[in-house]
Amino acid sequence: MKVSISRKAHFNAAHRLYREGYSDEENLRVFGKCSNPMYHGHNYELIVQVTGEINPETGFVMNLDVLKKIIKDEVEDYLDHKNLNLEVDEFKTVNPTVENISVVIWNRIRTKLDSKYDLKVTLFETPRNFVEYSGD
Amino acid sequence: MKVSISRKAHFNAAHRLYREGYSDEENLRVFGKCSNPMYHGHNYELIVQVTGEINPETGFVMNLDVLKKIIKDEVEDYLDHKNLNLEVDEFKTVNPTVENISVVIWNRIRTKLDSKYDLKVTLFETPRNFVEYSGD
Amino acid sequence: MKVSISRKAHFNAAHRLYREGYSDEENLRVFGKCSNPMYHGHNYELIVQVTGEINPETGFVMNLDVLKKIIKDEVEDYLDHKNLNLEVDEFKTVNPTVENISVVIWNRIRTKLDSKYDLKVTLFETPRNFVEYSGD
Amino acid sequence: MKVSISRKAHFNAAHRLYREGYSDEENLRVFGKCSNPMYHGHNYELIVQVTGEINPETGFVMNLDVLKKIIKDEVEDYLDHKNLNLEVDEFKTVNPTVENISVVIWNRIRTKLDSKYDLKVTLFETPRNFVEYSGD
Amino acid sequence: MKVSISRKAHFNAAHRLYREGYSDEENLRVFGKCSNPMYHGHNYELIVQVTGEINPETGFVMNLDVLKKIIKDEVEDYLDHKNLNLEVDEFKTVNPTVENISVVIWNRIRTKLDSKYDLKVTLFETPRNFVEYSGD
Amino acid sequence: MKVSISRKAHFNAAHRLYREGYSDEENLRVFGKCSNPMYHGHNYELIVQVTGEINPETGFVMNLDVLKKIIKDEVEDYLDHKNLNLEVDEFKTVNPTVENISVVIWNRIRTKLDSKYDLKVTLFETPRNFVEYSGD
Repeated sequence: MKVSISRKAHFNAAHRLYREGYSDEENLRVFGKCSNPMYHGHNYELIVQVTGEINPETGFVMNLDVLKKIIKDEVEDYLDHKNLNLEVDEFKTVNPTVENISVVIWNRIRTKLDSKYDLKVTLFETPRNFVEYSGD
Repeated sequence: MKVSISRKAHFNAAHRLYREGYSDEENLRVFGKCSNPMYHGHNYELIVQVTGEINPETGFVMNLDVLKKIIKDEVEDYLDHKNLNLEVDEFKTVNPTVENISVVIWNRIRTKLDSKYDLKVTLFETPRNFVEYSGD
Repeated sequence: MKVSISRKAHFNAAHRLYREGYSDEENLRVFGKCSNPMYHGHNYELIVQVTGEINPETGFVMNLDVLKKIIKDEVEDYLDHKNLNLEVDEFKTVNPTVENISVVIWNRIRTKLDSKYDLKVTLFETPRNFVEYSGD
Repeated sequence: MKVSISRKAHFNAAHRLYREGYSDEENLRVFGKCSNPMYHGHNYELIVQVTGEINPETGFVMNLDVLKKIIKDEVEDYLDHKNLNLEVDEFKTVNPTVENISVVIWNRIRTKLDSKYDLKVTLFETPRNFVEYSGD
Repeated sequence: MKVSISRKAHFNAAHRLYREGYSDEENLRVFGKCSNPMYHGHNYELIVQVTGEINPETGFVMNLDVLKKIIKDEVEDYLDHKNLNLEVDEFKTVNPTVENISVVIWNRIRTKLDSKYDLKVTLFETPRNFVEYSGD
Repeated sequence: MKVSISRKAHFNAAHRLYREGYSDEENLRVFGKCSNPMYHGHNYELIVQVTGEINPETGFVMNLDVLKKIIKDEVEDYLDHKNLNLEVDEFKTVNPTVENISVVIWNRIRTKLDSKYDLKVTLFETPRNFVEYSGD
């Protein structure tokens, strides 16, 4: 019996979208207000979904306290109240779009998760925009 | 890296559910209060999900401003504050159930979307009832 | 000890906004898309708040089953799946704006509620627009 | 045209998590505060998703009144305001984790649903933890 | 400049509603399914609102870390994952209705809060039922 | 008949909390992670409530299109995608706490609103923290 279990978390961060090779006009044309060099920010709301068999002994797919610890270590402590462009290694050369942030989060959690589990992350940049990434 | 990006939108409309070939009793039996000939209405809340590769240059699956424009042209301007039965061509011969509305919306967005993307629409008729359609 | 207890409910309805004395142009100018003569509609979400002393015997301000019955009789059965302009007496001469609907609902519940209670209604016309009325 | 239609429902229940073979210390270590022998409880929020072809005559995948009746009979009347450990047969030998509850709900609805439909249940134990089960 | 600042929190608990002096029939008549002697439970969602002047030096009405600590000590650690009837002193003689729980929470926070502040608590027993108490 | 009508809006911004007269240690002690000199950010969700008499001619307390225009001009265009500390005049000498931001928003809307109306703003800094300000 394969069940998916999900846990919500959240962090706040500043970022800007831009590409180094672009002129200022090109950055503004492609990224709009999000290219503001002074930064803006978001409350990122995250859903981490782990899929696996129910352990018949405990009734758990995975102990949520373990998952909460992984999310705290790999996402909240790493990204909360940070400037993504200036303070997070992965975004020194990669544009911190919500798509790329979801891939970074997925990769960080994946390394801490037993390979028997499937992993999906859903990341809301605002209550109106969000992405999903499953490692495919 | 395939990522799904979603954008929320909304529109308000009036409709009634009924089938021309049915007697009044049959319409009432099948469609209940929704068959009221005077119409009733809903706040439809829509989630449009586009799946594709992240463009390594921009970090976007798709520029959300482009997607917002498609949603505005094909859904909001077309359905908002309308009587679906009387004013929307597709529902002159098709019952405007939430299932059929989702298919109409999917078809309208699909024609404007590059074929390299997958498309799914989620449509809430009320906060308690909703449908998903992926074109399958 | 005065406590306010609230109960949520909902109904769906069609309406249009317009004023009989106005020309079509004036109706369109004042009420915009909401003046569409073909009607549009909403999922109205309602919060009914009753304020009073806690009954020391039961621990209740008011039995919620009694309040649910009043809301069902006076609001849901009366307004759900209706065309407010055509089928609801109060709106035959009064414009069914969310303000006026909240007053009608307040008046209908007030007549069924013991005078020892204070009453407030909050009515969402959409998730983004709502009104509050306390009978003042 | 395959469409998924979803309906939300809810019930409140008490439970505790524990395993008969475990010592008290082991139960506390594995299940934490959830192993409290005095019980605690939740507002379970349920989404039942049915996938199938749109019936061209009605425009429905399935009449939601039929689905609502199945959910009422098989879930709400069976689990609402119950102590899951003490009053629900399935949990006399199975730990009432949110994973196992979702499987029980899925099995109960599945037996009442035409085999032409696919079924998925999503069950929120809290607004922050939830599971999905599709019978796989 | 008087501003109200609010902080959300939550806890899960089991309870039953009943009155010792009542017969079983009377308890069932007054409290319905909530009188189940086996208990049921809820995810209580709490909003604590503190009103006061903005401190011109910090821009805070009150440091939210201090408020979070008070909520943790007085509400979460005291009520979370508990059986309210059996394990919480205040409810050994008082019926744990949502009204009475809100008064207990208000009293516990009030004793830890500087008297210059006004305090209101809003407590959701379910997403559909909630109370507000301001100490009046 | 006095009715309050509310409209939701939103903007994203970067900020940091700190006080010029404080040492770095003092800023960290008082403002915690929010004092990060690299900035962080939020999705601010705003509710603007206007209270007044229902105009018997239109059924409106106030035309929402007018209110939406005021919110766009005074809040969204002024604060969206900005660094509050660096780009917004009011916060060059005032700490951009959620309390102070709500006062700035209230003052900006107040100047554009007919004095016959009462005004309240509710500002969510995160889904878990919010303030209310009524000009008192």
